[in-house]
Amino acid sequence: MEEECLVQVEENKQVIFRGFIEGTPKETDLQVVVGKKIELKAPPKASGAFLVKNLYLSCDPYMRGRMRDFHDSYLPPFLPGQPLQGFGVSKVVNSDNPNFKPGDFISGITGWEEYSLIRTTELSRKIKPNDIPLSYHVGLLGMPGFTAYAGFYEVCSPKKGESVLVSAASGAVGQLVGQLAKLHGCYVVGSCGSSQKVELLRNKLGFDEAFNYKEEPDLGAALKRYFPQGIDIYFDNVGGDMLDAALVNMKIHGRIAVCGMVSEKNLSDPQGIRNVYNLITKRIRMQGFLQSDYIHLFSRFLEHVISYYKQGKIVYIEDMNEGLESAPSAFVGLFLGENVGKQVIRVAHE
Amino acid sequence: MEEECLVQVEENKQVIFRGFIEGTPKETDLQVVVGKKIELKAPPKASGAFLVKNLYLSCDPYMRGRMRDFHDSYLPPFLPGQPLQGFGVSKVVNSDNPNFKPGDFISGITGWEEYSLIRTTELSRKIKPNDIPLSYHVGLLGMPGFTAYAGFYEVCSPKKGESVLVSAASGAVGQLVGQLAKLHGCYVVGSCGSSQKVELLRNKLGFDEAFNYKEEPDLGAALKRYFPQGIDIYFDNVGGDMLDAALVNMKIHGRIAVCGMVSEKNLSDPQGIRNVYNLITKRIRMQGFLQSDYIHLFSRFLEHVISYYKQGKIVYIEDMNEGLESAPSAFVGLFLGENVGKQVIRVAHE
Repeated sequence: MEEECLVQVEENKQVIFRGFIEGTPKETDLQVVVGKKIELKAPPKASGAFLVKNLYLSCDPYMRGRMRDFHDSYLPPFLPGQPLQGFGVSKVVNSDNPNFKPGDFISGITGWEEYSLIRTTELSRKIKPNDIPLSYHVGLLGMPGFTAYAGFYEVCSPKKGESVLVSAASGAVGQLVGQLAKLHGCYVVGSCGSSQKVELLRNKLGFDEAFNYKEEPDLGAALKRYFPQGIDIYFDNVGGDMLDAALVNMKIHGRIAVCGMVSEKNLSDPQGIRNVYNLITKRIRMQGFLQSDYIHLFSRFLEHVISYYKQGKIVYIEDMNEGLESAPSAFVGLFLGENVGKQVIRVAHE
Repeated sequence: MEEECLVQVEENKQVIFRGFIEGTPKETDLQVVVGKKIELKAPPKASGAFLVKNLYLSCDPYMRGRMRDFHDSYLPPFLPGQPLQGFGVSKVVNSDNPNFKPGDFISGITGWEEYSLIRTTELSRKIKPNDIPLSYHVGLLGMPGFTAYAGFYEVCSPKKGESVLVSAASGAVGQLVGQLAKLHGCYVVGSCGSSQKVELLRNKLGFDEAFNYKEEPDLGAALKRYFPQGIDIYFDNVGGDMLDAALVNMKIHGRIAVCGMVSEKNLSDPQGIRNVYNLITKRIRMQGFLQSDYIHLFSRFLEHVISYYKQGKIVYIEDMNEGLESAPSAFVGLFLGENVGKQVIRVAHE
């Protein structure tokens, strides 16, 4: 198709970030537009950039943090009027970078659009062909999977036989945490937001127990039911009421890995966690973390998880939306618990 | 005085716990009475008990937790109608225990009364004579001092040059934390509740800076002023608003040792901590602890702190109340910030 002398020009559909928000994202905070035409060519002469066709985009809760006008975070805010950015799987179309050649499949940060020019290439990773679906490189084999791996092994200090609670358990991170904990010899209970997800956790993902938190009038009592002896490890993806209920139900010397606060409706006016005094009486370690601090373990993670997957010891559930047009509702659905499994948007077929 | 054949009988003044409470303790929750007369003799024939004359009693914030009808804690509640119990320094009067002889000085759990029969002797420790005031064995060389030592070295993972915030900094625990942190080469700021304490922290205890939190309309701004680059270590004795303000001002990879929640007015209806999401963005480790988990380090602690003290490298401020009659107001004063330094009650002179 494309040749050195004849630069192909394409329309480039984009998902635009309309402006900063405070509360939970709404579909109207994003806008799908046909952006200006794009030359499918990387700038020449050692720019190091490359141009990709995006295949899969990842919807991740952390992205909400970039929708605020708040510069004191580990990630800068999105630019109003520009496409969202996030993890994606893409195919190189044209390249000025010898490490990334046309035809290569790439996992890394890209734009929410059909074609992206990747100038910051440090986070781009070439995908080695294997039997695993390409889209898994933004889930099981990408940031969420690595978050689960680093968080469980490095932050939770798990021991065989311990009792583990995972919230948002059928989500991108939670489903792998639960399966790793089972493989480690733990008793694992997942909380989630629908009976469909309860089924999935029990029957497909191998959790010992699962419950729908929306059906529990008293979360503390629910946890007491599933953990009469208390919780050793709480892998917390939601914060809020579940964190408070877990604090009361932790065992002495329990550990809480604080991974997400997706239950917080408003990051500028967060809910208070009332039971923090349990940290003292139970000598609990509560540790926030980001997967990027453990990046030296990434190749070990890939090796382990690919091996588990190929042996059939772990499975991964994706919630695949078709087309960039579906992106706003897919992203907003994350915060309403609408996704069943890892939320991905297919922009184009491989 | 006492002889085998003639048992001395004495009146025994006591501080009685009147009944369970919910909020902050009041003086009327305690009652000083002349209890029934007591024979100054331990039960004979291998009871292992011994009878002591109490010299110093320690007022400690953790005791409030024992004033609730709450059995799911690391310590059982006090018995209504019975004397309070707590750490004290006592002199053995009579003994059925070969390890504790009449005339020995003892540090351990005793009753809030003039004479106590000690049946549970596991926590009693014979005081080796040295140049340090006897009463320091409930402070600098007792549970509060060891809390500071274990909490700072084992929980905070301090490094030279790091920035340390200590709350309730002139209190029993805080004053030693600050001095250990200075000896470790840290920059140390203390918060406290009066200008008198600010003076003490700056001029007597060697803190780099100190401030009166009651004069700060915005605690977050106050911390920003003293820690423009952020806080590496927060040794938290108070919880509540100061913990919230510290969370916002922590550095990446900061550590919070959660040691006390003295600011909580009501343990059954605790205040919410709103800024817990900072644990994630800053990868903070927040760890509750009790000194009793580190008891294997106690002899090392004594050796180090006694050596520092004798070299004049650390000082210790006591707030000594005279007589059991002063006990209710001394104890209640802890929660009003009335004590200046470690609050002790002198029951009798040595």
